[in-house]
Formats: sequence, structure tokens, C-alpha cells
Amino acid sequence: MAQRHLDPTNTTAAPADAVAGYLRERATEFLRALRTHRETGGGTASGAEESTDAALALRRSARRISGTLHTFRPLLDADWSESLRPELAWLSGTLGREHAYAARLDRLVTALNRLSGATPFPAQGTAQGTPSKPVAGSRATGAARPGAPAPGAAAPHAHPAPDRGNLTVGAAKAGALLDRQLTLARTRAHSAALQALGSSRFHAVADSVAVLASEVPLTPTATAADLGPLAAAAHDRLRDAVTGLPLHTAGRPYNAEALIHGLSPDTAPHPQDAPWHQVRLLLRLHRYALEVLHPEAVPVDVRLLAAGEALNRHRDASEAASAAAAAARTPRIAPATAYALGVLHADQRHEVEASRFAFQQCWQKEAVSTP
Amino acid sequence: MAQRHLDPTNTTAAPADAVAGYLRERATEFLRALRTHRETGGGTASGAEESTDAALALRRSARRISGTLHTFRPLLDADWSESLRPELAWLSGTLGREHAYAARLDRLVTALNRLSGATPFPAQGTAQGTPSKPVAGSRATGAARPGAPAPGAAAPHAHPAPDRGNLTVGAAKAGALLDRQLTLARTRAHSAALQALGSSRFHAVADSVAVLASEVPLTPTATAADLGPLAAAAHDRLRDAVTGLPLHTAGRPYNAEALIHGLSPDTAPHPQDAPWHQVRLLLRLHRYALEVLHPEAVPVDVRLLAAGEALNRHRDASEAASAAAAAARTPRIAPATAYALGVLHADQRHEVEASRFAFQQCWQKEAVSTP
Repeated sequence: MAQRHLDPTNTTAAPADAVAGYLRERATEFLRALRTHRETGGGTASGAEESTDAALALRRSARRISGTLHTFRPLLDADWSESLRPELAWLSGTLGREHAYAARLDRLVTALNRLSGATPFPAQGTAQGTPSKPVAGSRATGAARPGAPAPGAAAPHAHPAPDRGNLTVGAAKAGALLDRQLTLARTRAHSAALQALGSSRFHAVADSVAVLASEVPLTPTATAADLGPLAAAAHDRLRDAVTGLPLHTAGRPYNAEALIHGLSPDTAPHPQDAPWHQVRLLLRLHRYALEVLHPEAVPVDVRLLAAGEALNRHRDASEAASAAAAAARTPRIAPATAYALGVLHADQRHEVEASRFAFQQCWQKEAVSTP
Repeated sequence: MAQRHLDPTNTTAAPADAVAGYLRERATEFLRALRTHRETGGGTASGAEESTDAALALRRSARRISGTLHTFRPLLDADWSESLRPELAWLSGTLGREHAYAARLDRLVTALNRLSGATPFPAQGTAQGTPSKPVAGSRATGAARPGAPAPGAAAPHAHPAPDRGNLTVGAAKAGALLDRQLTLARTRAHSAALQALGSSRFHAVADSVAVLASEVPLTPTATAADLGPLAAAAHDRLRDAVTGLPLHTAGRPYNAEALIHGLSPDTAPHPQDAPWHQVRLLLRLHRYALEVLHPEAVPVDVRLLAAGEALNRHRDASEAASAAAAAARTPRIAPATAYALGVLHADQRHEVEASRFAFQQCWQKEAVSTP
């Protein structure tokens, strides 16, 4: 894990072995996380944090298995891998939602505090409130790592109650409204995740992953296959998608693009965000492919990680902006609440723009150095 | 007016003559503008545009005279110039207000259209709606040059009625509210300006300026004085004030500083804007001093003008943001209106931040090239 640079002299003797080995490792991690999750009680108060970590680990493995099945598709039994992928996507989506709502609330409350001139809300020691630098506090790295309370458990949100003493009435009410709405969504997501993990659908996924841990279903021709072109194709898909992004605009600071249509009648999600979200997914696939090819070079190039962080921040800010806009459509709210939500929405759209700028800056450097 | 670069070989033989000559020219312009203003009826419908232009020309001359009296104070009869300066400030403040309200409304309606994804509102052919580049559309250069309707005249605002077809209800209502409030303020400012121009206070100012046009009251030692140190002192005051600005932060795009306290209980104006406003004034004084010293090099260095434009845009956006916040405090507005005003406020604060960035970029270059 310590090596940060790719070693071009490292060649894999039997290419398919690299894929099979990578999948076996991820499958083993998956099963280990599942065991931990069950042992920690699936989210009861005692083992809440371990349980949440286990759920995130499950999701992490599921995403890597799914991505690898996709990128190295020709090496693997087609029927088997085509049936497993949507199930892994369902699982990782279901497992990620609770965490996403918690992180979104955290991001919005932090922003409300910043906008009110209050001391930045200490989100468990991270600096998520500083929008100008890509921080490690994106959803994936868990700036806001809430416990996983059982529905109806004592702690509806794991972060300390925000200090609303310095907030205006509007900001305080906006914070309370968002807290209510996103905590409710999070509690539901938590229930849905627990339900999913007890379902027969999940057990079928777990069985498939167990197979993967012992024997990866390769095609007969897999051992003679060359991984390079498949990984290169993943990189090409990323590069092509990036080419389609408005990077020239994104590279001009304060281009004010992200807030265009900020008051348009079209509801969220913002259509202009979609290509960036797509690049985020393709960047992840590219990164996983590099992990398969260069297991000794994990984590990969820090600039690739920084580009990914920028896109995570883009996604988080985009969704937070939508949540603020959605909260403003709550019937019978006070004008001061609506005003604060408007400021908050625009603030998060600026974050969207800032993230695009950050990505553009990373990518410029990346374009030179990516192998 | 065509020369853009300072000519270091041009030396003024008798320094005080340069000041006296400059003041005489400005005073003559002042009297000419006053005559035009009276001939065009002081703002009746027939001569509205000429009348507005004349009022702006009056203001332009008044500001230059006042600035010159300040910078080259030791050359001029102290009692006389100390009594004239506040009167000129009063006049230029009174004359500028109507135009400022009109420009503010134009800026806010343009922003509402942009935020609603509507075609940018064509403000008489300029691109004021494009916030990423310093445009010529700041208040001083008259992107929104409204007519000067008499109170109760047919045209309450000279720009064509904005197309609200594409706006959401909230944006449309916010636009209507701002239109009502700023048009009222503008009409009052117009009346106040007309009243001022008919007052005995104004006639006393005009008399003083008439004296200036024929004979500038220099001190006995003025002819032996050196203008250089006085102009240099004006430049030093500017440089010192710029040193006090948070330029390092301003130079990092998306630093999110301008929106800090955006929801704070303190009302507008934003205290963080004050040092920038101060630099704007000092930059203008520096520019006028250069005009005195180098009359052949007017307009001065384009980068100095660009820095000034950035600060004008800063001031305009700051005041527009305050106007949006103030409108949101109107009792009994709909939540959708308040939400739109919140987005608008944040958008204009973002413009404030963008203007600081633009100034920082100009200044970096300027620091190298200023004589």
C-alpha cells in the first residue's frame, strides 16, 4: 500500500491470473465484512460503528467486483457475470444511501454555519467546511461517519447537535428543516439496508461472491488473453467522456455556469451535472483496472485520486444543492427559511463549480502523467 | 484621448500650471454640462437621454475637481478648497444615485434571467449578464443608461420589460418586488437630484466652479511646487490600502470568502467589503492624479482601468446583493419569492468574490508596470 508510483517493469506472467486474483481478494474481503457485520449485530447500538464500517467495506468490495466484471468482461463467464453485476449495483446502492444522507446533512449544516459566520461545525475532526481545497471529507472517505442507529434508536444523528446560537432565525429553521427531512430519509435508508441484508436476494449475491472467493469462472480462452487492451479501453472510455466535458469553461474561475438554471422551473437533478457524474464513474472503473494491473501500486497516482475527490465533491455538492431546493418546496415554510435555503442552494452550486475547476486543474496535470 | 501609454519624456514646465489647467478644463466641462442639462429641460421626456448624459458629465467633472483639490491640496487656497470639496461630494453623490438604482435593478433582473436559464436580458446591447469577464457595463460606463423620467412620467424604467415567461413564479415575483422597490428609490433619487440642481446650495457650487474656470486660486508658493511627490503620495496611499487587502485569499479561485456571513444576523453592508470600496476610491484618485500629470496619456494604462472596472463591479455586486437581502425582509412575501432572493443574493456575493479575483489578477500585472 506504500508504493505510489506505477512500476512499468512489473509484468504479470499469466494475465487472467491477475484478474482472478483481484476478484478472489475482493470476494474474500466481502465475506469478511459480511461476517463482521453479522457479528456486530447489523447496526444495534453496541456495535454501531463497526457495523457501519462493515457495511462500507461490503460496498467497497461489491463496487470493485462489479467494476472488474465490467472492464474484463471477455475473460469471464458471460451469463454468470452479467447476472451478478446488476445485483452488486443494487447492493452497493442500497448500502450507500444511509451514509449519503448523513453526509449530505453534515455538508449542509456545515455550510449553514459557515454562511452564518459561526465557527465551522467540527465534523469529527475533518475540515469538510472548507470548500476551496479538495478535502478528504468526501462521502467515500467518510468525513461524516455516522453510527448506524437502529430505527428508533437513541441517536437520530451521530454528529453533535450544531450550535445554532449564531444563526439567524432563517438559517436555524432551514437547518432544522433539513435535519428533519434528511434524518427521516436516512432512517428509512438504514431500515432498507438492514432489510436488504436479510433478504433472499442478498443471500444469492453472497453465494455468488462466495463462489468467486474460491473459483473465478473464467472463459476457456482467458488465460491467453491480454489485459492491456481491456484496461486501455476503460481508460479510453474515461478520456472520451472527459473530452465531452466543458473543461475550457470549467478552467476559467468564476464562470458562473453551475448556477445557470438555478431558478429554472426544471427540478433537480441538474442536467448539466450528468456528464460529470458519468466521468466520476468511469474514473473509478479506470482506477479499479489499474488496481488489477498494478496491485503493487495501490493507492494509485495521487493526482488521479485528487481528480476523483473533486468529482466526489461535485456529486456531493450537486446533491446537497438539490436537497436544499427540495426543502424549499416544503409547504408553509417561513420566508426567512426559504431565503436561507436559497442562499444555501446557491452556495452548494458554487461548490459544484469549484469542484469542476478543481477537476480541470487535476486533469491538466493528469493528462501529462497518466501512463 | 487616443494615446494609451505614458510618455516619460513629457515634462511639465511649470508644475502648478498643470493642476490649474486641469482644473480649468474640468470646470469648463462642468459648466458646459450644466448648460446642456438646463437646455434639455432637466429630465422632461423630450430630452431625457441628453439630460441624463449631462447629469453624468456634471458628476464626472465634479469628482475630478474634488479629487484634484484633495491630491494637490498644498497648491491651492486651503479655505476655499476645503469648503468646496464636501459640496462637490454632496453633488456627485446626489447626481449618482438615480443612475445607481437603475443600474442595480438592471443587474439584478439580468441575474434573475440568467439564473432562470432565460436568454440573457439584452441591456441595451451590452453583455452585463456575463459575470466572468470584466465588462464595460459597470455603473460608470453606463451599461444601463436609463432615461431620466420625470416623476410620474410614462417610462418608470428605460430598459425593456424583462421577459418573465421563462422564470419560475419565485423568480418572477422577486423580479417584480425588486422592480417596485428600486424603481421607487430611483424615482425619489431623480426628484432629489432635480431638487438639488435647483437649490441655492447647488448655485453656490456652480459659482465656485465658475471661478475655477477662469482663475484657479493657487497659493503664492504653488508655482515653485513639485507635483511629483503629491501624485506619488496618492499612489502610496493606494498601494498601502491594497497591501491591507486579503489579496492572497482573493487570488485563490472559489475561496468562498464573500459569502461568509451571508446569513449572519448583521445586516448589509458587508463589513468585509469596506476596504475594497476604499481602494476603489484611492485608485480613482491615483488615476485623476495621472490625468493631471500626463494629460496627453488619457485614458491611462488599460490595466489600471481594468483594475478600476473590477472594483466597480465589486461595489455594484455588493450593493445588488444587499438590495436582494433587503427585499427578502419585506413583510408577507411568499416563500418562493424569498428563496429566489436568497439565490440571487448568493449569486451577487459570488460576483463580489469574482471581482476580487479579477482585481487581484490585474493588480499582480499592475504592480510590475505602474510607473
